[in-house]
Amino acid sequence: MRQLVGVVGFRGYSGAELVKILAAHRRVEPVLLEHGQDGDDPRPFRLPKGLLKIPCRPELVAEHSLAAVFLATPPEVSMELTRPLLETGAKVIDLSGAFRLRTAERYAHWYKEQHTDAGLLAEAVYGLPEFYREQIRGARLISNPGCYPTAANLAIRPLIRSGLLDRSRGLICDAKSGVSGAGRKPSLKTSFCEVTENFSLYSILNHRHVPEVLLNSGLEEEEFSFTAHLLPVDRGILETIYCRTSVGKTTEDLLSAYRQEYAAEPFIRIYPQGHMPDLLSVAHTNFCDIGVTVAPASGRVVVASAIDNLVKGAAGQAIQNMNLCMGFAETEGLL
Amino acid sequence: MRQLVGVVGFRGYSGAELVKILAAHRRVEPVLLEHGQDGDDPRPFRLPKGLLKIPCRPELVAEHSLAAVFLATPPEVSMELTRPLLETGAKVIDLSGAFRLRTAERYAHWYKEQHTDAGLLAEAVYGLPEFYREQIRGARLISNPGCYPTAANLAIRPLIRSGLLDRSRGLICDAKSGVSGAGRKPSLKTSFCEVTENFSLYSILNHRHVPEVLLNSGLEEEEFSFTAHLLPVDRGILETIYCRTSVGKTTEDLLSAYRQEYAAEPFIRIYPQGHMPDLLSVAHTNFCDIGVTVAPASGRVVVASAIDNLVKGAAGQAIQNMNLCMGFAETEGLL
Amino acid sequence: MRQLVGVVGFRGYSGAELVKILAAHRRVEPVLLEHGQDGDDPRPFRLPKGLLKIPCRPELVAEHSLAAVFLATPPEVSMELTRPLLETGAKVIDLSGAFRLRTAERYAHWYKEQHTDAGLLAEAVYGLPEFYREQIRGARLISNPGCYPTAANLAIRPLIRSGLLDRSRGLICDAKSGVSGAGRKPSLKTSFCEVTENFSLYSILNHRHVPEVLLNSGLEEEEFSFTAHLLPVDRGILETIYCRTSVGKTTEDLLSAYRQEYAAEPFIRIYPQGHMPDLLSVAHTNFCDIGVTVAPASGRVVVASAIDNLVKGAAGQAIQNMNLCMGFAETEGLL
Amino acid sequence: MRQLVGVVGFRGYSGAELVKILAAHRRVEPVLLEHGQDGDDPRPFRLPKGLLKIPCRPELVAEHSLAAVFLATPPEVSMELTRPLLETGAKVIDLSGAFRLRTAERYAHWYKEQHTDAGLLAEAVYGLPEFYREQIRGARLISNPGCYPTAANLAIRPLIRSGLLDRSRGLICDAKSGVSGAGRKPSLKTSFCEVTENFSLYSILNHRHVPEVLLNSGLEEEEFSFTAHLLPVDRGILETIYCRTSVGKTTEDLLSAYRQEYAAEPFIRIYPQGHMPDLLSVAHTNFCDIGVTVAPASGRVVVASAIDNLVKGAAGQAIQNMNLCMGFAETEGLL
Repeated sequence: MRQLVGVVGFRGYSGAELVKILAAHRRVEPVLLEHGQDGDDPRPFRLPKGLLKIPCRPELVAEHSLAAVFLATPPEVSMELTRPLLETGAKVIDLSGAFRLRTAERYAHWYKEQHTDAGLLAEAVYGLPEFYREQIRGARLISNPGCYPTAANLAIRPLIRSGLLDRSRGLICDAKSGVSGAGRKPSLKTSFCEVTENFSLYSILNHRHVPEVLLNSGLEEEEFSFTAHLLPVDRGILETIYCRTSVGKTTEDLLSAYRQEYAAEPFIRIYPQGHMPDLLSVAHTNFCDIGVTVAPASGRVVVASAIDNLVKGAAGQAIQNMNLCMGFAETEGLL
Repeated sequence: MRQLVGVVGFRGYSGAELVKILAAHRRVEPVLLEHGQDGDDPRPFRLPKGLLKIPCRPELVAEHSLAAVFLATPPEVSMELTRPLLETGAKVIDLSGAFRLRTAERYAHWYKEQHTDAGLLAEAVYGLPEFYREQIRGARLISNPGCYPTAANLAIRPLIRSGLLDRSRGLICDAKSGVSGAGRKPSLKTSFCEVTENFSLYSILNHRHVPEVLLNSGLEEEEFSFTAHLLPVDRGILETIYCRTSVGKTTEDLLSAYRQEYAAEPFIRIYPQGHMPDLLSVAHTNFCDIGVTVAPASGRVVVASAIDNLVKGAAGQAIQNMNLCMGFAETEGLL
Repeated sequence: MRQLVGVVGFRGYSGAELVKILAAHRRVEPVLLEHGQDGDDPRPFRLPKGLLKIPCRPELVAEHSLAAVFLATPPEVSMELTRPLLETGAKVIDLSGAFRLRTAERYAHWYKEQHTDAGLLAEAVYGLPEFYREQIRGARLISNPGCYPTAANLAIRPLIRSGLLDRSRGLICDAKSGVSGAGRKPSLKTSFCEVTENFSLYSILNHRHVPEVLLNSGLEEEEFSFTAHLLPVDRGILETIYCRTSVGKTTEDLLSAYRQEYAAEPFIRIYPQGHMPDLLSVAHTNFCDIGVTVAPASGRVVVASAIDNLVKGAAGQAIQNMNLCMGFAETEGLL
Repeated sequence: MRQLVGVVGFRGYSGAELVKILAAHRRVEPVLLEHGQDGDDPRPFRLPKGLLKIPCRPELVAEHSLAAVFLATPPEVSMELTRPLLETGAKVIDLSGAFRLRTAERYAHWYKEQHTDAGLLAEAVYGLPEFYREQIRGARLISNPGCYPTAANLAIRPLIRSGLLDRSRGLICDAKSGVSGAGRKPSLKTSFCEVTENFSLYSILNHRHVPEVLLNSGLEEEEFSFTAHLLPVDRGILETIYCRTSVGKTTEDLLSAYRQEYAAEPFIRIYPQGHMPDLLSVAHTNFCDIGVTVAPASGRVVVASAIDNLVKGAAGQAIQNMNLCMGFAETEGLL
């Protein structure tokens, strides 16, 4: 008998991906939770048929004994819904940025609005299983990481922990994302004719995902530069990271550090020397693929980190978190 | 000394294409006519620099002695602006559907709104130069054809005039268009993630462009079926036309009819036997490319007709019309 | 304990899709069968890790007791490998066109080469489960259908069986396919720069898939016209079918016939009135989605049929066939 | 009367672009020079009609008095053809890498083959008009720059000449290119299905274009890191450049330096503060668009430089060079 879990925002790209993965999960069954009205879907078979659909109201969530609720909603909606949903006894896994930073001040700075439930910030666990697995297991409220920070944090922390990063030289992350990362709401910037055959920069040096990397990777603010770009693809993130190691260190030295750090991780794949990840390798998977190239004579390092922004960067990681906090096998439904 | 011509709707795709072509035209110089407010353009160099920009008001149009005004606007705006602009003495070339049909009743039926200046319908000349060159030369108000009807009319009429079409069997037009044909206003249907890696049908058997084909090609309503599809490309239309000729007729027989019909036309290219047009062949050009394949044993005929929807299907043809009605060489600025 | 099944041609697009689906199948485990040398894959994680890879030799196939072998190979390779593989006791599911036609003459006509093992043509069962489920269950050699014929046959046969098709008017199939249907071998026609922002026709009125439709749909040669087009997408086929029904029949009448025909089918989805399938609805699924629009006043009918060419059009259907002939649940691994 | 100029390699992407631009040039007329046999073009109207086509033999080049010959050929072909063509009296503008480096040793190192006419290296003028205009005017042999170095050199040199670059921190160029930069020869890497919905790195830290930047920008080897990426677009290059300036310097300070450096340049556009170039802004133009963002508190600088790789990165710049060395207006045929 599968436990019921709810999805708010199931019409968006992350929400629909959640529903699709959950529908094939052997331990849970998704329930569609209607909130607000964003109209019907033009594709009659976009979501699986036969799922329960109910209004997103705490009493109904309680009545149906939902074990967990995923919020694939804007941060202002997540801030409003989280507390009443927690009070039903459900775990809450929030895919917005509402609970990723640790203080109301930082939230207000980066998200340009007041936090309306700052009391929950201290409790929220940052849902990056490779870093915080134990805390996630016991969490009631999980803040699912942003897509860019997922690829960045996983690529950066081993460099720091292994001592292989020359911290005096800083680290630059040139990040490229597919369009689904911008959500499903129509806008000129994400219109087909503005994106196809195009490529552009945005949020140069001041993307709101920067503090998530600083909080979790071990880098200091003055060490980290981040710029985002929009790729003419539906899904996928590739980040090219530039930094330095000691002169004489080899590609193999750095790969060893990565392999050691992630030896037990089911969703991290370290590439063999001479290979670098690309978007198609991770599309529709929960993997984060990492490759490294070093120029030993200069100590130059290029690290490439690739994920599917809707899976490891959103829905897949959220389900990985659900698996952990509900006691299922971590990879259930994700391989 | 170049004459001034105005462009209303210069931020849209057809309007921007008009400005781009006109800026390189040796006989005229474009003036940007502001109407309504659709905000500034995110790309600072999207339109050529140094052009005059003035509000679209009849007194200013008169004051600047604009010789012609192009309306790259929705039909309701075109119906409102045309008469006052004509009264300034300017020619008006309207790219909307406002003046393409001949009666207010048919307009109301297909465009789902009342015509607000039906008095001009009788005067408007349908701007397909290959069919109506002489009328266009003398016209004051030119109704620029729709993109789909341009490719269809040019492909269909020679079949009828040559007597090679078996009219008892009907004619089916399976039309495919790039996304820029839907205009620049953001919508879910034209969002990148809904279009890339996708392909879909719309306006099945009841597209509003159907009456334009019936009025100009020589086909009767009961002979003509039309269905539109959305291609994941920025620009281009390809129409695949299915019909029958007499058993025994060859590809070369039909090609001869086309070559004869269009021998003097600068913008029609008939393909050699064994070749069919594609979108890249016509992209960024004012050509309509036509190819034919016949199966002599059955009389089956496939005709393919390709244009760039923003050029021969909109801005380029509008400038071809301007060249005619202002007495310039027909190909000026277009080759 | 999962049974072993082999895949020849695992580096091609259909072959890689087979391996991916089989790797998640609960009853079988794929073995990679090397045949010829087409070099290594640039993406180290393109295929699942940890699979057995052995040369494709009958004695090794026998030694490993492979229960079935999938041939994702060109027809000349399939003709060469099938008999020796059958002699090992393995079922053979061939994805090429080698065994789809019923005589060596027709094969030679359409495939422009002599059949080298015509003795097997009589035994081969055409693997379209919706039509030949019982024969497939007992088959030793299954000829997996072509991608275009799958979408066409499923859309056409209900029109004939229900008597709703006006057979005097013929039926036209305007078919559009993604590029993966052309296979992985590099060629100018499938180069990125020749395909992106393009759309083109090919195999006009004489595609080698035509006889497969005639053999299985119930249509006669003189009733059927077929033309293929290349879409700038990776995967997906959409066929737009034009025909006539009796004047007065409605969309709902035809939809009822489809729903009745396919009521028990797990992989056919009939669209509600007013909706038509698109490529994204079927991408990465084994569904064939069908929609219908009728103009009752004229009897005009438009049917749209969509599949993922690599799944229902190739690997997915092959696994559906394997499920049937090996006695598994038909949907195993495919939902 | 237009002078004749030849194009070798007119079937490739750069060659076809050359022919297209030259066909509309008022001072010259292109002649197609056949060399080797790469088969006919599947698109009958891909190149303009009516052009003279002759074998690429020196005596024919002399007989037709070609004033200049463009070589859109691989470097080994350029090395073979250049000297005999120069001896006819024609100017030679070579688009390959054959004459971009200054010694045979460096050529052998980066191009992995011996230089077969090193005697010409000293004479060849590097055809970047913004840096070497006067030398180009008097040149007989012009080595047209690589696409990546064009965007890089134009973006980097003002930083150095203005003294605004903190040279102790180095400069990183993250470069992204469309697929046409790889040429027209089919390969798996440039097949549609491998590129669409994908994004990948290549030539990490060791691209053969690096020495061209070092030779011309003013940067030293130890200051410069370069990595290339393949975008799923037909044409366009965008390079994102990361470096540092003095703390306290503003975006406006750097923009001023660029504006001053390029005040008289017809093909360089400096973006206003708050805007950055994208590919669509430069597509089908000879412009190099440059934008800058500075974080004054840290001195971080991001420069974005965009060109159309087939125009300013190849054919357009080659014609700009021809205009200079033949005494035409520099912008002739290019605006």
